[in-house]
Amino acid sequence: MRPIGDRVEIGDLPLRDDLRGRTPYGAPQLDVPVRLNTNENPYPPTPALVEDVVREVAAIAGELHRYPDRDAVALREDLAAYLGSSTGVPLTSANLWAANGSNEVLQQILQAFGGPGRSALGFEPSYSMHPIIAAGTRTEWAPTPRRADFSLDVAKAASIVAERAPDVVFVTSPNNPTGQSLPLPDLRVLIEAAPGVVVVDEAYAEFSSRPSAVALLADHPAKLIVSRTMSKAFAFAGGRLGYLAAAPAVVDALQLVRLPYHLSALTQAAARASLRHAAETLGSVAKLAAERDRVVDSLVGLGFSVVPSDANFVLFGWFEDAHATWRSYLERGVLIRDVGIAGHLRVTVGTPEENDAFLAASKEVGR
Amino acid sequence: MRPIGDRVEIGDLPLRDDLRGRTPYGAPQLDVPVRLNTNENPYPPTPALVEDVVREVAAIAGELHRYPDRDAVALREDLAAYLGSSTGVPLTSANLWAANGSNEVLQQILQAFGGPGRSALGFEPSYSMHPIIAAGTRTEWAPTPRRADFSLDVAKAASIVAERAPDVVFVTSPNNPTGQSLPLPDLRVLIEAAPGVVVVDEAYAEFSSRPSAVALLADHPAKLIVSRTMSKAFAFAGGRLGYLAAAPAVVDALQLVRLPYHLSALTQAAARASLRHAAETLGSVAKLAAERDRVVDSLVGLGFSVVPSDANFVLFGWFEDAHATWRSYLERGVLIRDVGIAGHLRVTVGTPEENDAFLAASKEVGR
Repeated sequence: MRPIGDRVEIGDLPLRDDLRGRTPYGAPQLDVPVRLNTNENPYPPTPALVEDVVREVAAIAGELHRYPDRDAVALREDLAAYLGSSTGVPLTSANLWAANGSNEVLQQILQAFGGPGRSALGFEPSYSMHPIIAAGTRTEWAPTPRRADFSLDVAKAASIVAERAPDVVFVTSPNNPTGQSLPLPDLRVLIEAAPGVVVVDEAYAEFSSRPSAVALLADHPAKLIVSRTMSKAFAFAGGRLGYLAAAPAVVDALQLVRLPYHLSALTQAAARASLRHAAETLGSVAKLAAERDRVVDSLVGLGFSVVPSDANFVLFGWFEDAHATWRSYLERGVLIRDVGIAGHLRVTVGTPEENDAFLAASKEVGR
Repeated sequence: MRPIGDRVEIGDLPLRDDLRGRTPYGAPQLDVPVRLNTNENPYPPTPALVEDVVREVAAIAGELHRYPDRDAVALREDLAAYLGSSTGVPLTSANLWAANGSNEVLQQILQAFGGPGRSALGFEPSYSMHPIIAAGTRTEWAPTPRRADFSLDVAKAASIVAERAPDVVFVTSPNNPTGQSLPLPDLRVLIEAAPGVVVVDEAYAEFSSRPSAVALLADHPAKLIVSRTMSKAFAFAGGRLGYLAAAPAVVDALQLVRLPYHLSALTQAAARASLRHAAETLGSVAKLAAERDRVVDSLVGLGFSVVPSDANFVLFGWFEDAHATWRSYLERGVLIRDVGIAGHLRVTVGTPEENDAFLAASKEVGR
């Protein structure tokens, strides 16, 4: 059956000019034996966690005809307890905010502190959703390059921030897709240079041995926002739960732009169950860090150039034609990510078996 | 414990000027015996539906470490089947799009077709989130008044639309919070007058005996978008699932602005389970429509003036001080809604017992 209205093309619609010719964001979702392309935790939830999620959903399912708690207070309390205990910084629910994935958290931040006539600055290459969400909220995007080795020249970065005076600065640590993280003194230099808000995107923080930027909140409550996600170390990508820590006033500000009842009762219940199993889930983090180091060493041994990583992925090269190489991996049943950096590809650290398959393919694919 | 950073006030933050002094949207969430304030379906999910939701969640919970289907294809197929069979219009998944509540659907529509330098028009009083989402996407809002009795003068409305030429027109049918719906010929007049996109917001369509605007899609594929929700008749407010029907090109356009993986695996699974039980859930609609008519008749009998309703709520008055009257209801354990219309309050149709409690309170509260 042909869908109704299919004679209309996208070009016939009164679409905004800045969207014309674009394609939707997203890695290919392909059914391949070894999927190492979206930085998921390769270890499935434990049976105890699955059971707990199901029990929590069963407990709320009889009330699905009612709107959920609009402020998600119980979930924010649990997030405060987790983040407080893992960073050593005492946090309360008033410091926490949550949304459907950290993308929605970042979108709300730009709706409140960015938008038309305002600008956001990021150090590229970095998480490619930052400029996309800036565009979606009509925030001017000010890309600032990293060094050739993808590290950040913090002194230079701070002087650019001071000079350009963006309303919002994004600092991704560990940085996706390159892997390097920043120490607290460097973050402090950037925060002090910024006239507006600084978002430290810590999506991969659990994989890093560096302390979290949450430690700087007490000193910079009017500037600092630390964003996090349960999609990576927490093995909850399917549950879509992003969150942030900030001063209570920042959380109040985001409630002016959030859509009411944005977090379903299902999400709140399942995320709370998942947080209760944090210790067992995060047990995989040490395993993955060790595997990351093995993958790095093996790639170096094979003659690849590898960017040092503090996360659960590795950026490596050099390839004459990175996209052709990406396809060579795919032909061998290994899906990695072409992140659009010349000469480089990104591989997520998987299970030992998945990493073996990736390394075997790497031997064949060559540099 | 005082939260970290609580010495900072919202006024100290570099918030956008247009947000200063605002308060977050949302009805008070109070724990009161009779809650008739957010137009939920008062009948809880049946045990069979609860069981099915839990079974579906159990089936996907073991894969929560993986990102969900970004395009939610299976859910969109199910939505197409439901909406197609209930409207008699053949629809496919290419005609359907879904998000976390119809608010997110409407936000995506304004991100694609509204935004800075563009305008959206609505006939007020209507759903108060329309101007809020317009503000959130920096779309200029053009409010156009309804008649004093809240009905729509369609000829006049069409001429205003033609003259002001908004990029997006919102038509809510049945209209929230007034209850009246529009026949297809009237909708056609408005669509033909509009130079841009027309969103017919059918959040309450299941309660109305009028045909859905979906019947006009074949004739107006480049203009018409019909939005729906599972929060009302479907008794799925806690699950947060809004959707729309439109030409496939419109769905393609929305994929340019949606946040990737916006719909969790939990939401997709639970919504599909809920759709399988559509017949039993929607069995409550006839009961609620009969109760609505009883509430209307009783209110008229008590001397109130009542706006004719085609939905699961009733707008009634006249009150010298509507907010004081709202408080009088609350003191009697009945939570209804002060929607900000002078002299009027809105009551959701509940179970017969809840409606009896509301009517008993109405006798005491008086006009």
